[in-house]
Amino acid sequence: MSALEALKQDLEGLQIEDNPQIVKQKSRDFFWYSPVLKGQLDDVTADLVVTPKTEAEIIQVLKACFAHDVPVTTRGSGTGNYGQAMPLAGGVILNLAAMDKVKEIRAGVVVAEAGAIISKIDDETRAHSGQELRLHPSTYRTATIGGFIAGGSGGVGSINWGGLRDLGNVLRLRVLTMEAEPQVLEMTGEDLHKVMHAYGTNGIITEVEMPLTAAYDWVDVVVGFDQFMDGVQFGDDLGNLDGLLVKEIAPIAAPVPHEYFLRHQKFIRKDQSVVVCMVAPFAMDAFASFVGRFSGAELLYRSDTASDAEKKGLPPAYELAWNHTTLRGLRVDPSITYLQVLYPFPTQIESVRKMTELLGDEVPGHLEYVRFDGKITCFGLPLVRYTTEARLNEIIKLHEDNGCPVFNPHRYTLEEGGMKQTDAVQLAFKKQADPKGLLNPGKMIAWENPDYDFSSDKLFLFPGLQRG
Amino acid sequence: MSALEALKQDLEGLQIEDNPQIVKQKSRDFFWYSPVLKGQLDDVTADLVVTPKTEAEIIQVLKACFAHDVPVTTRGSGTGNYGQAMPLAGGVILNLAAMDKVKEIRAGVVVAEAGAIISKIDDETRAHSGQELRLHPSTYRTATIGGFIAGGSGGVGSINWGGLRDLGNVLRLRVLTMEAEPQVLEMTGEDLHKVMHAYGTNGIITEVEMPLTAAYDWVDVVVGFDQFMDGVQFGDDLGNLDGLLVKEIAPIAAPVPHEYFLRHQKFIRKDQSVVVCMVAPFAMDAFASFVGRFSGAELLYRSDTASDAEKKGLPPAYELAWNHTTLRGLRVDPSITYLQVLYPFPTQIESVRKMTELLGDEVPGHLEYVRFDGKITCFGLPLVRYTTEARLNEIIKLHEDNGCPVFNPHRYTLEEGGMKQTDAVQLAFKKQADPKGLLNPGKMIAWENPDYDFSSDKLFLFPGLQRG
Ligand SMILES: Cc1cc2nc3c(=O)[nH]c(=O)nc-3n(C[C@H](O)[C@H](O)[C@H](O)COP(=O)(O)OP(=O)(O)OC[C@H]3O[C@@H](n4cnc5c(N)ncnc54)[C@H](O)[C@@H]3O)c2cc1C
Ligand SMILES: Cc1cc2nc3c(=O)[nH]c(=O)nc-3n(C[C@H](O)[C@H](O)[C@H](O)COP(=O)(O)OP(=O)(O)OC[C@H]3O[C@@H](n4cnc5c(N)ncnc54)[C@H](O)[C@@H]3O)c2cc1C
Repeated sequence: MSALEALKQDLEGLQIEDNPQIVKQKSRDFFWYSPVLKGQLDDVTADLVVTPKTEAEIIQVLKACFAHDVPVTTRGSGTGNYGQAMPLAGGVILNLAAMDKVKEIRAGVVVAEAGAIISKIDDETRAHSGQELRLHPSTYRTATIGGFIAGGSGGVGSINWGGLRDLGNVLRLRVLTMEAEPQVLEMTGEDLHKVMHAYGTNGIITEVEMPLTAAYDWVDVVVGFDQFMDGVQFGDDLGNLDGLLVKEIAPIAAPVPHEYFLRHQKFIRKDQSVVVCMVAPFAMDAFASFVGRFSGAELLYRSDTASDAEKKGLPPAYELAWNHTTLRGLRVDPSITYLQVLYPFPTQIESVRKMTELLGDEVPGHLEYVRFDGKITCFGLPLVRYTTEARLNEIIKLHEDNGCPVFNPHRYTLEEGGMKQTDAVQLAFKKQADPKGLLNPGKMIAWENPDYDFSSDKLFLFPGLQRG
Repeated sequence: MSALEALKQDLEGLQIEDNPQIVKQKSRDFFWYSPVLKGQLDDVTADLVVTPKTEAEIIQVLKACFAHDVPVTTRGSGTGNYGQAMPLAGGVILNLAAMDKVKEIRAGVVVAEAGAIISKIDDETRAHSGQELRLHPSTYRTATIGGFIAGGSGGVGSINWGGLRDLGNVLRLRVLTMEAEPQVLEMTGEDLHKVMHAYGTNGIITEVEMPLTAAYDWVDVVVGFDQFMDGVQFGDDLGNLDGLLVKEIAPIAAPVPHEYFLRHQKFIRKDQSVVVCMVAPFAMDAFASFVGRFSGAELLYRSDTASDAEKKGLPPAYELAWNHTTLRGLRVDPSITYLQVLYPFPTQIESVRKMTELLGDEVPGHLEYVRFDGKITCFGLPLVRYTTEARLNEIIKLHEDNGCPVFNPHRYTLEEGGMKQTDAVQLAFKKQADPKGLLNPGKMIAWENPDYDFSSDKLFLFPGLQRG
């Protein structure tokens, strides 16, 4: 009997799927955003999908997989776009879709199972007491809260609260280890960093406790500019207004808005750059005053005064922003891709100008204003009119040579997509919590190859990468 | 019949007080904080106090005073500490204490009469829907919302929302003009600036619409440091943590905390500087982690884990901060006074260090961290061991020569206490709304003396200043 057969026996009574087509479907995330990852990961698939309904069932899966040396890759909704959830070594997909309950809501706090869809959590906290999560990815309506914490960074709301990993943006995580007898750990304070943004390589998050903030009927706004850099200045100034509550500020360069935002096209001229905003309803008077002060700013759309006919079929503003900008681009032009850039404070505007001048329409600008270490600055998710991998790397190098660090979304490892160095805390915790290295293999270089030279420009290739 | 007798006749049916002792009492605010103002204003008194119950009654008062050329000085609770509410030319005190109703609460918004006490508004919005005002002065439990808007600047909560005058921190004001037929104006957006922080010199605010934010049971925390500058660094770092929700950060230098915070004395060593904080309850784990990282920081007191015995008789943390620090000092040592200083970003820490080195224990440091134009920096309300007015002016000059602007709290005029220049918008509105110059006379230099030279170092003396 193969290990897999033995494993299936151990999992009797659980919801299991081994139809290869469905398994392959549940083995995929949005890695195909990257033409580089697309080539590498297109054939990756797991052997089995298990969908536990309780923490006890997850423990059963972990024990069995540990016993049979079968890799386990946890899956929320599979919306990660660096192949975070791709089971490089096959094995089991631990699908958390059925662990989706909101367990407790109180002032400023929600407790939920890790598989809960982010917008569903907000639906419940809003109805309960007019509260909502501080941050969400633009995949609000599909991504899970556990997947966001294990695989995401920030998003809508980061203009007020910074990123997920900022102290205070996650309150508590309940985590299972991958051992003969899985431990159940409750992590708070400094401990949280062990498993956040670790792609599930060193523990399974089963329950999260997150801070809430006041919920509002955010007004979607699109402001138009003839010059992209005027939109950037507008976004920067708006972000620095302490009393004007917004949840999202995204300057996006022409021709992206008109060409890729098909349903909003009617509001946007072909040569117009825009700033997409979400504004608190009671702040709209102040917002209109601010737009009035800004010469060249044109209020193209606001959802609070738009007619039903105008609003019909429009996606929410946040689905024009963050990685949805890229997605909308890909739908119109499948050859484009994107980057992730930080324009450090206080020279963010000059850096954006410089890169725009250097790269022009080959790399149309898309910025996301955020709070970063207490200051307002911008991340970029610029689109890239992709030609070759060599040119893509050149573009990355150009950014870095100009003081704009790139978080490379064309790499599936933690280190290459992040700080390009070992995260000692996460590595140490993996040694303890996953001694056999069965959790999401191939994603933590420090584990796979402790001697790896991060200063080399070489791509890490996971030796275990399974080929179809 | 004197103008006053005629006026009284016109006001029949309203609540009027002309007992000189009570009138004098209701003519006073906290001007005596300043040894300079104490000398100038101690004898000032009005002739009559009128306490209207409705806007219609206020209109009746204004019409009558206009007809008889009697000055009107509006009064909230009289907690202003630059003599803002002192009736320099006598006349009527328009006491808004009876205009104290909360009229409407919805998501993110409260509408209240101008005379409502700030903490009372919060009591109602909390009970209604877990909301509270963004900002309040440390006179939370006594000051009115109208007095705060007309005479205050910011306070607890400014670390998150900036100052009152930042766009978006006041939504709408309902304002009466001082004309033969008073107009009722609704101001929003750009218009708001006309009457905010104008000391009631160009209109009477009868109703306010203010933004709300989520209410929490804030935890009062006192952190101790051997070195004041370590506390300053702690406050700066804490203010720049994007995900850790606090409402107040006030570094205060030894020996102030031990010597003046009598009820907290038991927690604080004699030579200890402190940082007084208010922290969201769910952020206390993260806060404790942060304190743990900071070498030399010692958690002296936290209200969430303190015993009833420890908490007994303690004032709330915000009553150790802002101008309550000064008040507590004055109670122990009536000879001290204070200043109001801005330490501009990004050199705030260096500026504080410089001033501390220059002035030592003559000017014990008291900082209030705030958000200012999108950045975290600090205001100072340092105590001053007062000797002479000449030395006080020298200390002010020392600050200004070192790049730290002083908002002089020893002046009763708008200009001298503020930007030292004419506010053209407020002056223009006064011309329209108070053509006879009857509202709070003597407070707007630009009105009294259009040719006044603000660059001269001379003190403005209101010629109409009434002497007892
Ligand atoms: C159109 C689009 C827009 C996006 N916008 C944003 C954005 O604004 N901000 C942002 O940060 N990201 C964004 N992303 C990336 C992605 O959507 C987010 O990271 C998302 O939160 C992932 O959630 P998920 O449930 O789909 O996680 P998955 O993709 O299923 O998993 C992500 C990673 O976490 C691991 N994981 C999942 N659940 C657990 C668990 N319970 N315990 C341990 N490990 C776990 C997985 O193994 C994987 O490594 C976007 C992606 C797309 C395609
Ligand atoms: C111990 C102490 C602590 C303080 N802390 C702070 C602080 O943290 N932050 C801060 O900003 N200030 C502070 N102050 C100053 C003062 O308390 C605040 O400005 C307070 O908000 C004033 O409210 P009030 O109702 O007492 O106003 P008043 O003192 O009665 O009036 C203030 C000014 O506004 C005018 N006014 C009042 N109501 C109206 C109206 N409805 N329409 C038009 N004009 C009107 C008055 O004529 C006067 O010029 C403090 C003062 C003290 C004594």
